[in-house]
Formats: sequence, C-alpha cells, structure tokens
Amino acid sequence: MSVNMRFSKRTEGVTGSAIRELFKLTARPGVISFGGGNPSPAALPDDIVAEISRELVASNGKVLLQYGMTEGLPSLREALVPYILNEFSVKTDVSSVLPVTGSTQAFNLLLDAYTDPGDVILTENPTFLGATQAMHLHQLRVIPVDSDENGLDMDALGEAIRRYHPRMLYTIPTFQNPTGVTLSLERRKRIAELAAQYDILVAEDDPYHSLRYSGKALPTIKAFDTAGKVALMGSFSKVISPGLRVGFLVCDEPQLMRKCVICKQSDDLHTANLNQAIVEAYLRRNLLSPHVAQISKRYGAQMDCMLSCLENMQGVERFTRPEGGLFIFAWLRGGVNATDMLMKAVERGVAYVPGTHFYPDGGHDSTLRLNFSNADIPTIQRGMALLDESLKG
Amino acid sequence: MSVNMRFSKRTEGVTGSAIRELFKLTARPGVISFGGGNPSPAALPDDIVAEISRELVASNGKVLLQYGMTEGLPSLREALVPYILNEFSVKTDVSSVLPVTGSTQAFNLLLDAYTDPGDVILTENPTFLGATQAMHLHQLRVIPVDSDENGLDMDALGEAIRRYHPRMLYTIPTFQNPTGVTLSLERRKRIAELAAQYDILVAEDDPYHSLRYSGKALPTIKAFDTAGKVALMGSFSKVISPGLRVGFLVCDEPQLMRKCVICKQSDDLHTANLNQAIVEAYLRRNLLSPHVAQISKRYGAQMDCMLSCLENMQGVERFTRPEGGLFIFAWLRGGVNATDMLMKAVERGVAYVPGTHFYPDGGHDSTLRLNFSNADIPTIQRGMALLDESLKG
Repeated sequence: MSVNMRFSKRTEGVTGSAIRELFKLTARPGVISFGGGNPSPAALPDDIVAEISRELVASNGKVLLQYGMTEGLPSLREALVPYILNEFSVKTDVSSVLPVTGSTQAFNLLLDAYTDPGDVILTENPTFLGATQAMHLHQLRVIPVDSDENGLDMDALGEAIRRYHPRMLYTIPTFQNPTGVTLSLERRKRIAELAAQYDILVAEDDPYHSLRYSGKALPTIKAFDTAGKVALMGSFSKVISPGLRVGFLVCDEPQLMRKCVICKQSDDLHTANLNQAIVEAYLRRNLLSPHVAQISKRYGAQMDCMLSCLENMQGVERFTRPEGGLFIFAWLRGGVNATDMLMKAVERGVAYVPGTHFYPDGGHDSTLRLNFSNADIPTIQRGMALLDESLKG
Repeated sequence: MSVNMRFSKRTEGVTGSAIRELFKLTARPGVISFGGGNPSPAALPDDIVAEISRELVASNGKVLLQYGMTEGLPSLREALVPYILNEFSVKTDVSSVLPVTGSTQAFNLLLDAYTDPGDVILTENPTFLGATQAMHLHQLRVIPVDSDENGLDMDALGEAIRRYHPRMLYTIPTFQNPTGVTLSLERRKRIAELAAQYDILVAEDDPYHSLRYSGKALPTIKAFDTAGKVALMGSFSKVISPGLRVGFLVCDEPQLMRKCVICKQSDDLHTANLNQAIVEAYLRRNLLSPHVAQISKRYGAQMDCMLSCLENMQGVERFTRPEGGLFIFAWLRGGVNATDMLMKAVERGVAYVPGTHFYPDGGHDSTLRLNFSNADIPTIQRGMALLDESLKG
C-alpha cells in the first residue's frame, strides 16, 4: 500500500487519546499510577458478576445469546426508568431511554445524529479528552468555556453563546473530569434555560453522579429541562464495571432518539445482551445501592488522603477539593511544566496526566490531574511522597 | 423542542433498517419467520457459555471487569492469529487483528477511517441492508454491481471501476447475504488484483465463512492480497452467539489500522472484555470447531429441506442453491410483488423479507429472501406450505 495513502478528512490530525498512549509509556512495573480513571480492583465485584453471569445465561441464554433489539433489552429499559428518577431526578419513560455500549457511545451517537462538520460545540475548559476527540472526529469547532470552582462560568458561557451560536454544549456537571468540580444548582437551572432560549442541545455527561463522598446530591441539568433540549448520558463503568461497557442515554425528543437508534444500528447493532442483563440484575436485585455505598466510603477515604498529602506539598500552588468522583486537579507552583516533570516522576515511580491534555486549546502547562480511585491509601501515600520528591528535585 | 428540529445531514433520508422494522410488524405470535438471520435457538450454546462466563469472571474478574485496551484483549488477539490462518487462509499477526463489537462495527470503522462524503463505494447487487445503511450514513455514493451464481460479475465490476473510480468495494464473497451465492476462486484472485491495480480498498465481509454444508472451502480474497488493499471482517455471531457482539477486523496496513483504533476509541472505547474472553475460550479450548460441525449439520439439513420445498412450488420461478450460510434467494413467477404478498403471507402465518430491500436502487419486486437457520425442519415444512398457499391464493 502506498505510503501516501489517503484517509478520511474526519481523522486528519486526530492522533488518538494522548492519555491512552501515555499509559503505555508509564505502565512500568512498580510505577504507582494516578493517571487513569480506573476503579479500584477491590471495587470490581467479580464474585457477584461471576455468579450472576452464570445464572442469567443458564436461565435465559436462548434470549441473551440471540440477536437483540437496537433499542436495548426491554426489561433493562424498564428498570432504568425508576433508577434514573431516583438517582438523577429525571422523570422519563421506556421510549426515552437507550442502553448503550458505554456512555462513550451515547455521546458519539448524539454527535452523529445532531451535528454536521463545522458546527460549534462548547465545552468546559478543561474537559474530558475522549469527548474532545469525538468532537474532532465529527469535524466540529470546539470552543472551550472557562469554568471556576462551581463549574462553567455563566458570564463566559453567555458570551460564547452570543458570539459563536453553538449547536451543542458538552458538560460534565458533577465531579467533572478532570477537575472534580461540581456545577452549582443555580447554574444547572440556568443552563437548562439557556439551552431552551438559544436552541442549544446540551449533552450532559454524568458518569460520576453517584460517587458522592460529602455534601448533598444535586439534580441533573436534565431535571430542569422543560424544552427537551438536554440529553443525559450515564454509565455503569464507575459504579459496577468499565469492562462490561454499559451506559445509557436519556433523550425525550423522539426524532432525535430515533436518529440515535439508526446510527447505533450501524455502530454495533445493539449492546451485548448479557452485559445489559448484568446491569439489569444489579438494578432489580437492589445490588447497586449497597455497592455504591461501599465503594464511596473507600473512594472518599482515598480522596481525603490525597487531599491531605497535597496540603503538605510545597510545590503545589492550589488544587480542587471535590465532593466526589475520581479526580483532583492541581496547579504547580513556579510555572513548573507538568509534562516535562512526568518522565522524571515515572522514574521515581509515580505517574499522573499533565493537565494540558484536557484543554482543547492546550497550554496550562503547570496543571495535572490526579486519580484517587485506583490506588489504596498506603499506595496513595507512597505515590504522593514520590510526587513531592519529583517536585522538589 | 421545535417540530422543525434540524438533524445532521448524514442521517437525512436514512430511515433505519427496513428489515428491523418489518420484524416488528411480522412478529405476531405463531407466525413462522424466515425473515431474520438468527441462529437456531438450539445452536446457541447457553450451557457452555453460562459455565465459561462464571469461570472467567471468577478466575480473572479483576482484569475482565476493569477497562481494557481499545486494541482488544491481548490474549484474544493472539488466539485469533492461528484461527484466521486456519479458517480464512490469511497469514496475519497480532498487530493486524482488531477485536470489534460485532463485524458491523468493523465496517463502520473502515468507513470512518477511509471514506469522505461523496466517495464511491461498489457493492454486490443485491447486498446486505445493514452495510448499505452504514454507507448512506457516511454519505457515500453507492454503486451496485450485478452478480450472478458465482458472485460479482467481473465484466460489470471492471466497467464500474473504470467508470466510477471507486474508493472502496464492499463484498460478502461467501454464502452472500441475501443470495447465498459464493464468489468463485478465480474471481477472488481477480478482485485482489483489481484492488491493487486501481487502488481500491476491499472490505471483505465474511461472517458465514465457516458455515459450509457442501463443496470445498475457498480461501478469502484477503488470502490473495499482496498489496495490503483488502480488509477482512469476521464475526462470531453466526458460529457462537450474535448477542455477545464480538467480531474481528484484519488489516495489515498499519496506518489504516491505527485510524480504525482511533475511531473505535470514540465509538465504544473497547469491546467488552468478558465477551472477548468468552470467544477466546472457544478458540483456545477447541470448542469452536466441534460446535460449528454440529450446527452445520443442522443448518445443512434445514437448507436441503427448504430447497426441496422450493422445488415443488409452482409460484417460484427460480432460486439460488447455496453451499452454506443462512439464506436462499428466490424469484417469484409472473411478476408477483413480494412486498404486496407479505402481509397476506403473515396472515397465513409465515414471514420473509422482500428482496427489494437488498437492492440499493430498489426494484426487483418479485424477489424474496428466505432464512433457513432459525426454524427447525418441521417448522420449515409448515412455513413453506403456508408460503405456497400464499402464492397460490
């Protein structure tokens, strides 16, 4: 094949997740990783899933192993409706809920169904790299909007809306990736209003919603959506297992849902039935709430430990103080470049993700994202000590 | 939301799989369906998969429930290499094999990575509706090329290449959907040559390859590809379970594979680990070959039964005589419209898919596709008698 092979325009300049590539470099034996967004191994319910899998296939295998509907397992969709009401404060119905192959797919479907190349999409600044990559593959114009300790800055958002006439807004309102920051109640209401007023589709990505360790749960933006302008994306990756690849999309605009289903037909026809049924079992047997309570206790303690370590680190100028989720975001003192420091840190035995990767326009070189869910407390203490040494040295 | 809501251009005029919609209409209790492409319930190995699932999660759950690599489970990729050599006559290596979420995804990734709107893609005429839909969602210009009892007509293909300068060719060379026809050895070689000569990427879709009931296995087109211009797509849907959603892509052009991986990151991040591991267990424990032998015996007998029934049907002018796969294609006598007849047939208690849906340009109204894998022999006999009555009355 010719070395000058031509590929699609949509993939031009899209290099793949820098983070996923980084992991390959930093995945040396013995290196403590604060880099990923991985659940703790202890939080992965292998015993329960092993037994449930066997039971589900043994009792209903002729259905689960056969083709399923693109719209998802009817019994899972039914179970999702009360779950979404209780957990996300969103009243929905079976026809507005679509099980998907991880919430990654939900966002991709929304972009497929709703955007054309050249459309403007607003995002938090910084934001989730995977989402930015999906935007670039859809050839969108990505406009980052500044956020503060309460999430998206409303003045900056208003200005961006008036200036750029965006087609969509992508936001992670709760325990945001990478900052851990949560959008305030008032701003949630305001975003729902702005979406209706300016005809903007809000893609509300809420995978960390249930992982709250302090403070009071907030309703989603979708809960304030009276105009059908908010699509909510949820995931079971952080609360059951990422390896199962099951999430959901809530969208009560029938035409948009139909377009998403059509696009999903070409994506993967349907989400694997067994995986959907495992999630359904978690919901119907009331296994999810106690599991989330258990892992929240663990993650909360790990977060507190990491925050304590950060308080004592001279090289760290400031850092976010999340009430949940998986991540803390930090700013280094004295303009230290987090990318330059990374390989030195890895040599000492600790890894993180330089924050610059999360800014669609780059820059912000003295920032870094730290994950506290994957490592246990002694490991966090060791890793943070190594990070402190890297900063000093 | 406004009733005049605007959606993406790529989804304009794409109405979703007519077949999947048809199934909803024809799925009445008691109706014998020759409509789908579903494996027989008896062919779905629920007992084995139940036990394997439990065992895999119990022994390796901390890995399988965690995030995986977009490139797939390394151990599955290793197991796929000898499988693809033995079964598809293609010598490949781990880096050229990508596990995917059903071969549907493989084709979508190739289109994402390799095509731009307006590009020309050639297909058999008729061809798989799901593939045509993916082409339309990528805003390609679809040019159907006539095929005969040995597959794609080489003169028509040559002419279409010279006239339309296609970017890709999509083909199902073995037991084609919907015709059941198999591309001859000579034509396979010739297509590999044409692809190299005219710089056309061949997307070779071969999900039925292993389901051969008579005749001799043929090498894939990919087996004759010395120029890296053929991408092979395979599936475990027809030989283990469609509900698991596991297939594979073979592509030995590193840049193209890399682009596909990048697009997969945004599609679903990775294929569910447990599902990959179940397929791997089938390969490593030598469970697949005996299972395929068993279901081939069943499907072969069912096909022979259906062919015998067709021989005695006055209303059928001609039909294909496949050596494997899941489908027979038939032409009705006297210009009977298969779409008009369908609801009458359903009222009598039998369903099929009108062949017109498989022709990208429509027409061919007197054709129909019959599936013989899902129903057992007594049911096939009853259903074909009902079809005969529908034709007579």
